[in-house]
Amino acid sequence: MKCILKINVACLLLLFYSCNYIPAESNKETEKRSIIFAQGDKNTTQNFNGEVWVKSLIDADSLNETAVGNVTFAPGARSKWHSHPAGQILMVTDGVGYYQEKGQSKVILRKGSVIKCPPNTPHWHGASPDTAFVQLAITSRTNGPTVWLQTVTEKEYRD
Amino acid sequence: MKCILKINVACLLLLFYSCNYIPAESNKETEKRSIIFAQGDKNTTQNFNGEVWVKSLIDADSLNETAVGNVTFAPGARSKWHSHPAGQILMVTDGVGYYQEKGQSKVILRKGSVIKCPPNTPHWHGASPDTAFVQLAITSRTNGPTVWLQTVTEKEYRD
Repeated sequence: MKCILKINVACLLLLFYSCNYIPAESNKETEKRSIIFAQGDKNTTQNFNGEVWVKSLIDADSLNETAVGNVTFAPGARSKWHSHPAGQILMVTDGVGYYQEKGQSKVILRKGSVIKCPPNTPHWHGASPDTAFVQLAITSRTNGPTVWLQTVTEKEYRD
Repeated sequence: MKCILKINVACLLLLFYSCNYIPAESNKETEKRSIIFAQGDKNTTQNFNGEVWVKSLIDADSLNETAVGNVTFAPGARSKWHSHPAGQILMVTDGVGYYQEKGQSKVILRKGSVIKCPPNTPHWHGASPDTAFVQLAITSRTNGPTVWLQTVTEKEYRD
């Protein structure tokens, strides 16, 4: 009887350790999976609603007026309505989010989605209610800065 | 004795199934991890050496002259030396690669690295010898197309 008990304990210990074993490389990759580019600091401007992190990755300069930012939206967070005088390109690197142009239906964006927003077109983007959303924003400063507009209402967000 | 044997078999079966169990979501994410944006077709131009896949994600147009491409280099693959009349931005989404401007040291790029290449500056980029490399290339067409130059020699690649 003692022998059976010892064998059981040995098997259970083996089971416990083997199932908690994660190869170092795999573990490392899992941690990094959803963060490719730096997340940056939490937004403190009035241009967003909800928790948003913004990191400027590339600044525009006189030789290349293209700026690239990484924007991370917590579930439910979103930008205000706004427009870009030279348009904008959005590249989704993780999560599930929304994009909507004034007068158009809301578009669902997922990892790998790409959006080209025309110049001077009011639009907003943000996370879906239950999933965070990470996107690169590529914006030319050639015709001036972003024009910020009104808050996205709950009805607009939910419709 | 038969009883011990049965317990051992039961424990081993439990061990086998529990350690081969991968949650559906985790498995799905692992498969998608290294491919965020479409990989596209294998390059057939003379502008690269080695196996390279190129996907145009955003085309330049008259309203927004910024183009975005996704380029995947197999280990050891690389571009020829080349320059861009309006410069280029590289955003690394996976792997390990190299970037070098004429007269400068080679820079090692990893997932999350960002490079701003000045206008009319000869440079090359590609994968490290043992690891594939995936990058977004953001290029303004305002001043004309890419100027392709000579092949990167083995010495230049290895130095």
